[in-house]
Amino acid sequence: MPEVSAYAIDSPTGSFARTTITRREPGPTEIYFEIAYAGICHSDIHTAREEWGPARFPLVPGHEISGTVTRVGSEVTKFQVGDRVGVGCFVDSCGTCPECEDGQEQFCTGEGGTVGTYNSIGRDGLPTAGGYSTGFTVEQDYALHIPDEISLEHAAPLLCAGITTYSPLRRWGAGPGRRVGVVGLGGLGHMAVQISAALGAETHVLSRTRSKEADGLALGAVAYHATSEEGTLKRLRNSFDLLICTVSDGIDTDALLRTLDTDGAMVVLGLPSSPTSVGIGNLIHRNRALAGSNIGGIPETQEMLDFCAGKGIRPMVEVIGGEEIDRAYDDVVASKVRYRYVIDAATIGA
Amino acid sequence: MPEVSAYAIDSPTGSFARTTITRREPGPTEIYFEIAYAGICHSDIHTAREEWGPARFPLVPGHEISGTVTRVGSEVTKFQVGDRVGVGCFVDSCGTCPECEDGQEQFCTGEGGTVGTYNSIGRDGLPTAGGYSTGFTVEQDYALHIPDEISLEHAAPLLCAGITTYSPLRRWGAGPGRRVGVVGLGGLGHMAVQISAALGAETHVLSRTRSKEADGLALGAVAYHATSEEGTLKRLRNSFDLLICTVSDGIDTDALLRTLDTDGAMVVLGLPSSPTSVGIGNLIHRNRALAGSNIGGIPETQEMLDFCAGKGIRPMVEVIGGEEIDRAYDDVVASKVRYRYVIDAATIGA
Repeated sequence: MPEVSAYAIDSPTGSFARTTITRREPGPTEIYFEIAYAGICHSDIHTAREEWGPARFPLVPGHEISGTVTRVGSEVTKFQVGDRVGVGCFVDSCGTCPECEDGQEQFCTGEGGTVGTYNSIGRDGLPTAGGYSTGFTVEQDYALHIPDEISLEHAAPLLCAGITTYSPLRRWGAGPGRRVGVVGLGGLGHMAVQISAALGAETHVLSRTRSKEADGLALGAVAYHATSEEGTLKRLRNSFDLLICTVSDGIDTDALLRTLDTDGAMVVLGLPSSPTSVGIGNLIHRNRALAGSNIGGIPETQEMLDFCAGKGIRPMVEVIGGEEIDRAYDDVVASKVRYRYVIDAATIGA
Repeated sequence: MPEVSAYAIDSPTGSFARTTITRREPGPTEIYFEIAYAGICHSDIHTAREEWGPARFPLVPGHEISGTVTRVGSEVTKFQVGDRVGVGCFVDSCGTCPECEDGQEQFCTGEGGTVGTYNSIGRDGLPTAGGYSTGFTVEQDYALHIPDEISLEHAAPLLCAGITTYSPLRRWGAGPGRRVGVVGLGGLGHMAVQISAALGAETHVLSRTRSKEADGLALGAVAYHATSEEGTLKRLRNSFDLLICTVSDGIDTDALLRTLDTDGAMVVLGLPSSPTSVGIGNLIHRNRALAGSNIGGIPETQEMLDFCAGKGIRPMVEVIGGEEIDRAYDDVVASKVRYRYVIDAATIGA
C-alpha cells in the first residue's frame, strides 16, 4: 500500500498540516501516479469550511490534479508508465447507468453514484482523499491524458475550472455570431473568457469593478463592463445570447436576465448560499432561460483538454507551497488570486 | 369606417355590455374580415381585471380570432375575399428590427414595438380593440390562413393557446424518445398534450387532482399524475426531458425542477403574481434549465396551424354567446371550463 504525504485539515475552523495517508495498491485496471500539481478550487474551501454541509475529517481536498504515471495494473490499456495524467472532480461511477453510458458520469444514477475525488466514499468503502498530496491511485477510465502542449501546472486547473466552463459554453452554443457575457473574472471566469473567445464568440466580461479590466481584455474579451458602475446592466439590456455566471452570491439575477437577448440563456455555475428570487416575467419575455451546469463527464473533459492544447488556452496560475494553503484560501475568498493557486506537490513531501 | 358590434367592459370590476366600435377602413395592404368566433383566454381576464396593471377602458378583449375575409386593400396579395383568416395576440410590429426579420414579431424592438390585439396603441395612434366583436381590420402580414380542415370555432383558440404551447415544444425538442410532462390541464395544457403527443413525445399530464384523468389520456397522454397525492413529485424525480408548465401560481417550482432528468428544461408559460424562489442547486445538479416562452411569431403560428390541420389536433371548445362572457370568466378562474370558451360572434351583433 503506497504511503504518501498530504496536507489535511481537521475541522472547519482548523489549519492545514502535513500528514501521511495510504493510497490503494493499484488494481488490475488502475493506475498510480505521482502528483505534480493540485489546483485550489473555491469548492475546496466551501467543503473544508463546511459551507456545503458536514465534511469527512481529516480532509485532504484537491480535485484539479496533474502528474505522471509510475505504475499501471496488469489490465491497464489506456496509460503507460511515464504518461502525463490528470484527475478532476470524480474518480468513479457505476459505468452502466444511462448517464454513465452517455459520458455524463458526474450525474451517475447507479449503485453508489458518482464518487467524488475527496470527501466521498469510494467503492472500496473508504473515504476518498484528494490531490493535496504526492501520489494517487485511480481507475484508468477516470483519468485524463494531458496533451504534450500543456505543462502540468497549467493542466491542473483545467480539470475543474476548465471543464466547468467549457461544458456550458459548448452546450449553449458559444461560437461565431454569438455574444457571450462572462460574469465574474476569477478562477472559472478567466477560463470562460478564453474558451468562449477561442470558440469564436464575441466575449464580454461583467465584473464588479474595473480592477481586472486589462486582464479581461488580454484574455480575449472584446469589452469589459463594471457592474458596480451606475446603469451598466440597464445599458446592457438585451445584449447577450449567453451569460456564464461564475459568481454565486451577491448578484442581481433579474437584472442579469434582462441583459439576455431573445432566446438567450444565463448559466449559473456556482451554488448560492440561499434560494434565488427570479421574476418569471424576465424569462417569459424574450423566451429566456436560467440554467445550471455541473462540471462535465470524462469524454468532454478530454475534449476540453485537447481543445485547450490546440488553441493555446492556459489558466493563469500562481504556484505555491503546501504550507501556504491556509493563506491561499483566505486570498481566494477575498478574490485576491489571479487566477488560480496551484500547489507544487514537491513541497508536500519535502 | 366600418361600425361593428362588440362586447366591452368599463372597469376592472364591471360587467360586459354590448356596444358599437369603429374599425379602420382597410388600407392598401390591409384586410377586413367578419369575425366568426373569438376564444376567451385567461390573459383576457388578467387584463380586464387589471391583474397585470392598468387597462385601457372601455376594453374589448379577444386575441383568438377567426373569421372570413370580406374586403381587401388594393395591394393585398396574401388574402382574397372569402378566405378563412385568423388573428392572434398581436396585429402589428415594426417589421424591420432583428426580431421581426427573424419572425419573432412578438419581441419587436423597433419603433412602437409589438402592437397587442387589444389594450395597446396602434401605429395609427388609436387604442386597439380585440375579437369580442363582429368585424376586424388588420395588416395582411399579421393575419393567418386557417387550413380548410379546421373549423372556425376550433381555429380561434389555436391563435393563442395553440402557438403558446407549440412554440416551446418545438424549441425545446419535444419528439420521439423524449419524455414531456404537461403541468396543468386547462386551455393551454390540453393543447400542449395533443401537440406533444403528435410530435412523437412520450407525454404525461401533471394535474392537481384526478378529475381530468380521462380527458388527459384521451388527448394523447400515456400517463396522468395527480400532484396533490402524497409523494407524486418525489416518485417522478429525474423523469422528464421537458416540462411545459401552464400553471402560473401555486406550484412548487423546485419540486417540479427535480422531476427533470439530465439536461432537462422546465418552460413556464404563465406569469406568476409574485417572484418565484428557485433553488439554483436544482438547476446545477443535472444541468437543468428553467425557461420562459411567450406565444410565437407569425411564421411559426402558420406552421402550427398547418401542423394541427395535418395531425387532426383540435381544441375542445364550448361555444357561448356574448351575454355569457361574465359567467365564462368566473368559470375560467374556477378551472371549470373544458377547455376553451369560444364566443360565437353571431350573438354579438344580434
